[in-house]
Amino acid sequence: MKRNVVTTLAFPVLVTAAVAGVAWGEEPLASWNEGGAKKAIVDFVARVTTKGSPDFVPVAERIAVFDNDGTLWAEQPMYFQFLFALDRVKALAPAHPEWKDQEPFASLLKGDVKAALAGGERAVGALLLSTHAGMTSEEFEKIAGDWMATARHPTTGRPLTEMVYQPMLELLAYLRANGFETFIVSGGGIEFMRPWTERVYGVPPERVVGSSIKTKFERRDGKPVLVRLPEIDFVDDGPGKPVGIQSHIGRRPIAAFGNSDGDLQMLQWTAAGPGPRFCLYVHHTDGGREWAYDRTSSIGRLDKGLDEARARGWTVVDMKADWKRIFAFEKE
Amino acid sequence: MKRNVVTTLAFPVLVTAAVAGVAWGEEPLASWNEGGAKKAIVDFVARVTTKGSPDFVPVAERIAVFDNDGTLWAEQPMYFQFLFALDRVKALAPAHPEWKDQEPFASLLKGDVKAALAGGERAVGALLLSTHAGMTSEEFEKIAGDWMATARHPTTGRPLTEMVYQPMLELLAYLRANGFETFIVSGGGIEFMRPWTERVYGVPPERVVGSSIKTKFERRDGKPVLVRLPEIDFVDDGPGKPVGIQSHIGRRPIAAFGNSDGDLQMLQWTAAGPGPRFCLYVHHTDGGREWAYDRTSSIGRLDKGLDEARARGWTVVDMKADWKRIFAFEKE
Repeated sequence: MKRNVVTTLAFPVLVTAAVAGVAWGEEPLASWNEGGAKKAIVDFVARVTTKGSPDFVPVAERIAVFDNDGTLWAEQPMYFQFLFALDRVKALAPAHPEWKDQEPFASLLKGDVKAALAGGERAVGALLLSTHAGMTSEEFEKIAGDWMATARHPTTGRPLTEMVYQPMLELLAYLRANGFETFIVSGGGIEFMRPWTERVYGVPPERVVGSSIKTKFERRDGKPVLVRLPEIDFVDDGPGKPVGIQSHIGRRPIAAFGNSDGDLQMLQWTAAGPGPRFCLYVHHTDGGREWAYDRTSSIGRLDKGLDEARARGWTVVDMKADWKRIFAFEKE
Repeated sequence: MKRNVVTTLAFPVLVTAAVAGVAWGEEPLASWNEGGAKKAIVDFVARVTTKGSPDFVPVAERIAVFDNDGTLWAEQPMYFQFLFALDRVKALAPAHPEWKDQEPFASLLKGDVKAALAGGERAVGALLLSTHAGMTSEEFEKIAGDWMATARHPTTGRPLTEMVYQPMLELLAYLRANGFETFIVSGGGIEFMRPWTERVYGVPPERVVGSSIKTKFERRDGKPVLVRLPEIDFVDDGPGKPVGIQSHIGRRPIAAFGNSDGDLQMLQWTAAGPGPRFCLYVHHTDGGREWAYDRTSSIGRLDKGLDEARARGWTVVDMKADWKRIFAFEKE
């Protein structure tokens, strides 16, 4: 997704529902229609995994990176991490009587999200930092985890962890079954994602790259803790994504998956390496089963990226045409 | 090792020699004398890997972190990365005629390292940033790699990659054979280490945590590159180590290995988690085969850490007594 610098800042949540969603023995990529994007994926994997092929890539170098919001799970009507921040403001309000007269908190507590956000990046920054900093890393993990265990999507009513794309779960599993290491590289908060990415996506904490605030090692009650500070450390979005990849992974991926202009530099960086490369955009074309948006959306805008994908022959998933099923709950 | 903020800043090198040094089928920990430290290690591994034991730890949580300088390879008579910086100043001098009249470069180019370092942290910072920044990440990898391929230790004359501790190579292999993921968490430069840690230690780039300078994504000649900027990003030393661990790994280790006060917070952070924990200090006690130093050394000072290790019953390796062999080349 494409975010502003400040909206990007956000962080952890534990999840109970939605396990990785792919049973062994099932046909790989079962929720993908034949041809098109599916064929491109299967052909690429065959090329890099066939021993003796000039395009063979050793297992250690099979690095695949995935954006999260809009690529692995939904991002409408707003980033799920922002829902977390809104709920946290309500939970923290009793301890902050001054918020009654302070924007963006005052409007928010009256239920007027639109007025609260009228303050733009500054308002969003205040919301995120006031809800994501001040506690220890362990406390935040628990706060976010408890929240995610009950959080539901505002329009579908589903647990947020069921708002993941079934075809992408299958793709993650397919790549791992073919020797790939799958990483998440998201503009979302690294500590917001880590508590549930293993359960939901099969991606462990050490393979999650994201935005962060600064933390500080100190002693509290004689115990060493990491305290979360109200200061931006790193924004893992747009040109930040290749920087985050180099910092955390230290190798250039051979495959990259995104859905917005905020992923474009990650795809460019991936494409610019030698040997076989695979870049894919998820295009939100299904207003019935999911949401339809691209060039003019304020969330997940896909404009320059779509042009570049077409010009360079990258794979573009047409969600409506390429995916038999978007969410696992559709089969119910 | 314990470093100043500025000395910490340093970075990549490719290596040809010294493969991981442990043949399959060999007795594990063959270079360790029986009893003492070896027994403590073996007992801990047995406790956390025995199914049904109350101390059993699932594979995914078997995270072990290792300092590098002074823990996995030597750090005397100076950090090896600093040798790299000195050599780079010489290599870059023709393109910097102004260095002839500029400290610390002028003294260094006359061969007077001591005078060059009289400027303290500021001088060291100038040396490191002038040699580690300005190029792309790929260019730096090649520069450092080419250097490491021929660099030799100033007193032993050995390739630097042979200055690794054979017992620690065996320990890394032993832990991995028991389901651990082994990470390096070093005050040294992350990009200085990554090109050779896999070959030398069996630790791939994505499991290396270290100090860093900022990088910036941009286009050069139409190609996307990451440019290394002369600005400190993160100092992975002392209280920075738990921060680096949380950022890169996202889980608390259950075992930590260091050799100096700069590793103390990493050991404290590791020890403070629930369940079985293992903390080990390598104590440099062998002035004959290696170097003997601890409480008063400017490099790798081990003072507070030694007291805390003894008070808390952490394992302290007495290099002279516990290790049959320090370097692989001793057997020749």
